[in-house]
Amino acid sequence: MFLDRGDAETRRKTRRTPGSPRRFSLRLCASALCFVFALSLPAAPADWIWSARWVITEDARHRVIENGAVAILGDRIVGVGTKAEIDGRFQAKQRLDRPDAILAPGLIDTHTHAAMSLFRGIADDKKLQDWLEHYIFPAEAKNVNADFVRWGTRLGCLEMLLGGTTTFTDMYYFEDVVAETAREAGMRGVLGETIIGFPVADAKTPADALKFTEGFLARFRHDPLVVPAVAPHALYTNSDQTLQAARALANQYGAPLIIHLSETKKENDDAMAQRHMSPTRVLDSLGVLTGRTVAAHCVWVDDADMAILKARGTGVAHCPSSNMKLASGVAPVVKMLAMGIDVGLGPDGPAGSNNDFNMFEEMDLAAKLQKVTTLDPQALPAGQALEMATIGGARVLGMEKLIGSLEDGKRADLILVRLDRPNAVPLYDAVSQMVYALKAEDVRDVMVNGKPVVRDGRILTLDEKAILAKAAEYRLRVSQSLR
Amino acid sequence: MFLDRGDAETRRKTRRTPGSPRRFSLRLCASALCFVFALSLPAAPADWIWSARWVITEDARHRVIENGAVAILGDRIVGVGTKAEIDGRFQAKQRLDRPDAILAPGLIDTHTHAAMSLFRGIADDKKLQDWLEHYIFPAEAKNVNADFVRWGTRLGCLEMLLGGTTTFTDMYYFEDVVAETAREAGMRGVLGETIIGFPVADAKTPADALKFTEGFLARFRHDPLVVPAVAPHALYTNSDQTLQAARALANQYGAPLIIHLSETKKENDDAMAQRHMSPTRVLDSLGVLTGRTVAAHCVWVDDADMAILKARGTGVAHCPSSNMKLASGVAPVVKMLAMGIDVGLGPDGPAGSNNDFNMFEEMDLAAKLQKVTTLDPQALPAGQALEMATIGGARVLGMEKLIGSLEDGKRADLILVRLDRPNAVPLYDAVSQMVYALKAEDVRDVMVNGKPVVRDGRILTLDEKAILAKAAEYRLRVSQSLR
Repeated sequence: MFLDRGDAETRRKTRRTPGSPRRFSLRLCASALCFVFALSLPAAPADWIWSARWVITEDARHRVIENGAVAILGDRIVGVGTKAEIDGRFQAKQRLDRPDAILAPGLIDTHTHAAMSLFRGIADDKKLQDWLEHYIFPAEAKNVNADFVRWGTRLGCLEMLLGGTTTFTDMYYFEDVVAETAREAGMRGVLGETIIGFPVADAKTPADALKFTEGFLARFRHDPLVVPAVAPHALYTNSDQTLQAARALANQYGAPLIIHLSETKKENDDAMAQRHMSPTRVLDSLGVLTGRTVAAHCVWVDDADMAILKARGTGVAHCPSSNMKLASGVAPVVKMLAMGIDVGLGPDGPAGSNNDFNMFEEMDLAAKLQKVTTLDPQALPAGQALEMATIGGARVLGMEKLIGSLEDGKRADLILVRLDRPNAVPLYDAVSQMVYALKAEDVRDVMVNGKPVVRDGRILTLDEKAILAKAAEYRLRVSQSLR
Repeated sequence: MFLDRGDAETRRKTRRTPGSPRRFSLRLCASALCFVFALSLPAAPADWIWSARWVITEDARHRVIENGAVAILGDRIVGVGTKAEIDGRFQAKQRLDRPDAILAPGLIDTHTHAAMSLFRGIADDKKLQDWLEHYIFPAEAKNVNADFVRWGTRLGCLEMLLGGTTTFTDMYYFEDVVAETAREAGMRGVLGETIIGFPVADAKTPADALKFTEGFLARFRHDPLVVPAVAPHALYTNSDQTLQAARALANQYGAPLIIHLSETKKENDDAMAQRHMSPTRVLDSLGVLTGRTVAAHCVWVDDADMAILKARGTGVAHCPSSNMKLASGVAPVVKMLAMGIDVGLGPDGPAGSNNDFNMFEEMDLAAKLQKVTTLDPQALPAGQALEMATIGGARVLGMEKLIGSLEDGKRADLILVRLDRPNAVPLYDAVSQMVYALKAEDVRDVMVNGKPVVRDGRILTLDEKAILAKAAEYRLRVSQSLR
């Protein structure tokens, strides 16, 4: 049984390619014919069948399939349907049946700084300047090296995978180490070395960072898990020349460009004072938005800015936890979505701007924050929040043909979320449950690129014990470095 | 080692009884003398010693004790200190040592409707009238009876206890069944039968509900776990006479009065239109606030209203998740706290206004919502959020001498929260970790009134399997009733 989810209004809001009733009937007939045809064929091979009580596809029709299943061959999804149908069509080498779970696309984090996990909660409830100058910059100057980034990213990937995040979008230092760690964890990453206008641990100048980035792009451009990106930190921390060079490099390699944009009012006020233009308009005037761009935050964008983001196809990484905790402000997400801008979600870094990598919380907060600030309980319904965390995030990254939904031909990034805990029952609507009731801790199994990486709540790819021990070691080292 | 937590400013904001340096030195000498004296005595008896890496006391000095322990005898805490000190002073029959956990006071929920767990997520993202008229009222009319309330409250208590809530403040129907269920669960409850101006399942008139309440007060007034309360639903759903009768009854029994107050703008606008006074001023003019009152929400209170709440000693149950999800608005909590009003936290009901009973999320949201709406990252720091969920909540309920902190003589309501999961490391500040990084799912052990009720994440008092099965049954029944 296929169920279109939610009420008509939600569907209108979230559906991208509505079909006419006639086209729908044709599609139904075609499906039925295919089904009958498939039954008459010998079963096709599959490496895995994963089944669950509810399959949330996030396909164009936002199908939610009761008693559904997904077949996987190699790194791809080769079939999505009812369990009966998939079992009939495929002969799988291995299978995982979770009759009391939701099967959904892996969650896509569009903005974070994974290695900062080792600074988790180092300085909360501070003003930004105090936080940066007295905690983050000294802590980074004294601690960040390749070893720190490796263990910090391991800890981040561990938490992310256990919580159902299958793709992360990262901007930090020693990004080659981040990439190696993503591969080790079996996690998909869109990764960019920070390019910033002052000396940092692994680059004395922005030119060094650009050079590093070029090597990084060349090294990882054909990687099955890593999408190398170009990551100038922000407008206010880079020269125009650096930003343009970054854009040129990104376009040369067909790589996405990651940047912080209009996170704080101060950033906007400064741009207006110095250039008489908003940061978005400055970037646009420099040509920085001529290609796939992932702009993090976009809290202080106005209508004209949003029109530019829409026209350039710039994706927005909305970070509700971070924007709330740092008191940055509330991004006009309802408006962005209404304008057709691609918006994804990100937890940002865990060293004060958030204290975890929890995409379930970001979904919940994205919905609730828009509701309370627009005083409209219908603003950003559960379906839109889940879309932002899946196929919407994939669009932000320019990867919507690869990931973000459960559809034939897509990479097999899947999560199974348990429904057998008190907070998960009763279930009246699988999508609402995902956004408002289920937690990262309810994720039971995770597959990335066709490979199981979490099984029954246990990580398969990383040494959890060693990572926790190393975090304790770094706690002492970092604490001492700040004395 | 005793650590005063946080920076000086946070302490100034949260500390209620600051001592002079001289008084502090005297206290220190006295403590040292007691300690030496205690060591020379034979060990005192205790039923339990619980120890942990960090003990967050929430006492007047907000002590956080590294390698600390608590001794319990009967239903009371009889000792709090370092593990070495407590082990020296007490001979315990049983002990629970968690060297990788935080030991904290049980969390206090100041506003919920537990039985509505069976309507979890029944109707999300709706306008209030649509939600009430087309979902909640029909669902309640067709389903709510004593059996529904018993199983719904069991499910609610199960989720609450597993998530570290040891006291809940409830307003629903068949509240005697709620009380019986709280006792069965071994959970502390401040419980009031809803008094409302239209016929409901167990009362045809408000007079019936008042009569029921009087019997309820008489039956449970000496119960060790249940504090019976008087619970007129709201100003706009009751006559003045009913409200005054409710107050008189509460005062006669020395019981708290629970009421919804200024939750929505409409409620305020209607009161202004009809009575030319805010709801708070109307209640005050009726004498409804002359005694312990727990006012839920207080979103639309102005300065004059808050002055009344302060003058009358009315406690506020702040419900950030609910206020966000229903788009009710943002309560002026920073101002309330600055004025010295007692403010606690509540998840509200899980049938649309929230979808869970998660006090960790309420702490996190309370802090973040105030920060983003005041644009001040220092607003409502972690210490204040944790205080609201513990001793602050106890003050709201008028129970600060019984619960809310780990201190000698208080009832033994304790939780142990694990620090051995990826989201919990590294730990730089135990209080920040509790509020911003730890989750309800990290709660490992819970004691209420001296009795362990959760051990290693498993409930000891309720039949979890039967409750989950019953929730599935009710899912079908409720769904069918709405067709």
